[in-house]
Amino acid sequence: MAAPTTAPLADRLRAIVGADAVIDDRATLLPYAYDASFWSLRQNRAPEAVVLPRTTEDVARVVRCAAETGTPIVARGAGTGQTGGAVAASGGIVIAFSRMREVIAIDRANLQAVVRPGLVFADFQDALRPHGLFFPPDPGSGRACTLGGMAANNASGPHAVRWGTTSAYVLGLEVVLADGAVIWTGGARSRALKSSSGIDLTKLFVGSEGTLGIITTLRLRVQPRPPARAVVLAAYAALEDTVRSLDDLFAAGILPSTAELLDTSAVTALQRWKPDLALPDGEAVLFVEVEGTPDHVASAVRGVDAIVRRRATVTRFAEEEAAVARLWAARSGMAAAAALAHPGKHRIFAGEDLAVPLTEIPRTIRRAREIAAELGVAVTFYGHFGDGNVHSAILVDPADPDEVRRADELADRLHRLAIEVGGTVTGEHGTGAVRSRYMRAEHGDALDVMKRIKDELDPKGILNPGKIWNEEATSRR
Amino acid sequence: MAAPTTAPLADRLRAIVGADAVIDDRATLLPYAYDASFWSLRQNRAPEAVVLPRTTEDVARVVRCAAETGTPIVARGAGTGQTGGAVAASGGIVIAFSRMREVIAIDRANLQAVVRPGLVFADFQDALRPHGLFFPPDPGSGRACTLGGMAANNASGPHAVRWGTTSAYVLGLEVVLADGAVIWTGGARSRALKSSSGIDLTKLFVGSEGTLGIITTLRLRVQPRPPARAVVLAAYAALEDTVRSLDDLFAAGILPSTAELLDTSAVTALQRWKPDLALPDGEAVLFVEVEGTPDHVASAVRGVDAIVRRRATVTRFAEEEAAVARLWAARSGMAAAAALAHPGKHRIFAGEDLAVPLTEIPRTIRRAREIAAELGVAVTFYGHFGDGNVHSAILVDPADPDEVRRADELADRLHRLAIEVGGTVTGEHGTGAVRSRYMRAEHGDALDVMKRIKDELDPKGILNPGKIWNEEATSRR
Repeated sequence: MAAPTTAPLADRLRAIVGADAVIDDRATLLPYAYDASFWSLRQNRAPEAVVLPRTTEDVARVVRCAAETGTPIVARGAGTGQTGGAVAASGGIVIAFSRMREVIAIDRANLQAVVRPGLVFADFQDALRPHGLFFPPDPGSGRACTLGGMAANNASGPHAVRWGTTSAYVLGLEVVLADGAVIWTGGARSRALKSSSGIDLTKLFVGSEGTLGIITTLRLRVQPRPPARAVVLAAYAALEDTVRSLDDLFAAGILPSTAELLDTSAVTALQRWKPDLALPDGEAVLFVEVEGTPDHVASAVRGVDAIVRRRATVTRFAEEEAAVARLWAARSGMAAAAALAHPGKHRIFAGEDLAVPLTEIPRTIRRAREIAAELGVAVTFYGHFGDGNVHSAILVDPADPDEVRRADELADRLHRLAIEVGGTVTGEHGTGAVRSRYMRAEHGDALDVMKRIKDELDPKGILNPGKIWNEEATSRR
Repeated sequence: MAAPTTAPLADRLRAIVGADAVIDDRATLLPYAYDASFWSLRQNRAPEAVVLPRTTEDVARVVRCAAETGTPIVARGAGTGQTGGAVAASGGIVIAFSRMREVIAIDRANLQAVVRPGLVFADFQDALRPHGLFFPPDPGSGRACTLGGMAANNASGPHAVRWGTTSAYVLGLEVVLADGAVIWTGGARSRALKSSSGIDLTKLFVGSEGTLGIITTLRLRVQPRPPARAVVLAAYAALEDTVRSLDDLFAAGILPSTAELLDTSAVTALQRWKPDLALPDGEAVLFVEVEGTPDHVASAVRGVDAIVRRRATVTRFAEEEAAVARLWAARSGMAAAAALAHPGKHRIFAGEDLAVPLTEIPRTIRRAREIAAELGVAVTFYGHFGDGNVHSAILVDPADPDEVRRADELADRLHRLAIEVGGTVTGEHGTGAVRSRYMRAEHGDALDVMKRIKDELDPKGILNPGKIWNEEATSRR
């Protein structure tokens, strides 16, 4: 049945998974050349072929085929990534998981679910809701992004403060290795919620961006859904006061479920976009959320309000679900608001995901503003304050080459700034192609240990080449 | 300065770290031959030398010395482990961290602390308390065990239900590799609270039991300490009702901070040991804890009580800290209570740490009771119900060889039972020497991937040989 290795790649793939599971016409390949990164938008990195597997065995056979000929192979979820992670940097095969999106099991009594990697985050939440459950990590792209992509990038969002990142919720993974062998991490048949058995391969594959293996099934921990929530909105005269306010909460034994930051640039943009929110002025605004039973939330929101008003110029809180949802909808419309504030410019994803120590957030944002002003580039800053994650929405006219060059320089300097203040170049989006050049500066000699593991698990270098490691970054300093 | 490699090991070590940092007289070496495992108590595995380093550089130099001659090297905290993990299975050097126990930094505003591996868990909590902070994982041996040991074994305890295991709280590690090189995982100079940068070496070293590298400093996430707690105590006519009761809580959106189980054997033992607790009768008793602000706790404890009394025969709750502390003190005296119930017998640590799916707990305990009865071995069962962790206190007369043989068989069958019901042979204690034989059955081919990583990072096999992997387990099925 198998086509000879001298046959064209797509023919060989068709012989393996069937003609309807292989794409190789240029027009249909085109979307697979892109993700949300500015990097991918400036070039055409279409793969030679896209495979749409239905089963783990399909994936394993495709990987074996790629291994025979040393062909690069890149796993792809919804393509919402901002790092080029799901784009074939050097040709080869993209495995797109759009047909492997089943919820295999939801087991409330055991607080877990088993899903396929192509399942969309929002669809998973919808499936969990009738069981009174939820999956805590909550990326901004949740309406489109997939669970496989979230695991591959160790994604998170506003709720990571209280609930942690995707890594904390992956109990086990079915993984196709670089030679096509299939393993289960976290116990071959386990449904346990915790284990200290062997070494932790699960959390090694989580965040490895398809460079060590390809995830084909996920066993996930899920949580009882808190029945109520409320949000305190607090405006501050100075960024530094937000840090003190959060520390006041910590001192009182309170860890909010989210603490979202809007820098003055974001406040202004939101005021213009959604005037009905009546967002107060300030150098910074925090949205602090509490969750739990209705009783608890009613008491907690007042407790948080009493504490943050010591430092804030204005506070108010929303308890009714409709009002809370309206605030969050406004917050998640930041990208639209930022674009509106700068007509004719487009938001690009570059230098967009710094995470720094909480106490360094004010200095980081002030310095970032100065650099942006110096370079004459428009930026809006916002982020998940509670874990130090600072997002920057850089706005450019893509038709202006000099502005694009200045935006590139801004992104580069933001990454270096993050490392300089004791942070990381990516809090939740991943390394991909765009941040590999910063790995040496951030990780030092640990990068070599990462590379040794990569080379051991993928000796031919076929799994997502050009991501995390590249020549420049992996050569010794 | 260095002694030639032909000199006795202890002489070479003295030349490296100074005479006062090396132990090689047989009497003083003896305690290092043991941990809490029954395995270690039945043999004498004294190392050739013990080193008591003061600095990371001391550790690195000792590892380089060991690497030169292929000498085994085993890291040791307090020796409270129950798996032989900190015992030199095949001679060589034990590095004991009793002099590296500093709290280097506590940084509340950034929710983190930096500590040395020899720091005792309880001392760390004491240091955190004035800052309003705590470190959530809470092993039963917390008064003695060290943070390095907790990280090496991914330890946890009752609070893992709500807060997760040690792995969730390790942000970065300074690690001495098998060749003596020193790296920092999680960013060379990072103080970020989350990161998706590179691959996650931190969580690979956590739980690897000193087989991949030796931890010399830990950067830990800490949390605001909830100011109040309360406990609901509920007795059940049948084990199965405890599972339904917990699911009732999940359905109501409630995740308790702990849900501790006492099987009837443990209830009887505790009733005899602490009659003043007036512990109600039942096939099972649950201690369900809630934490938070005083307002929240007052409301939550009543909410939990209302839900568990649907299934329980008796419930009552303790809100005053003195009463709560008295309940927990009784619970943590389980070992003493079990011993009292069987005069003349000693508790051994073997087959003591199963974790199974929550819904399988009743079947697991019933089957375990049957096996124990069939073998004529006394056992008390209890555990961290909320994450499926079933502890068994096996009681034997060590002078009775037949009873010891039957206890060994019981431990073996308990391990196999855990795997059979979809669980793991160790929920929180680790693999060590005693559970390596079950790794193939539990992990299947994933064990080979673990071994490839081990061989890549420790090609000479000097780091804690005989743990996790052994000849029997690593040969293909």
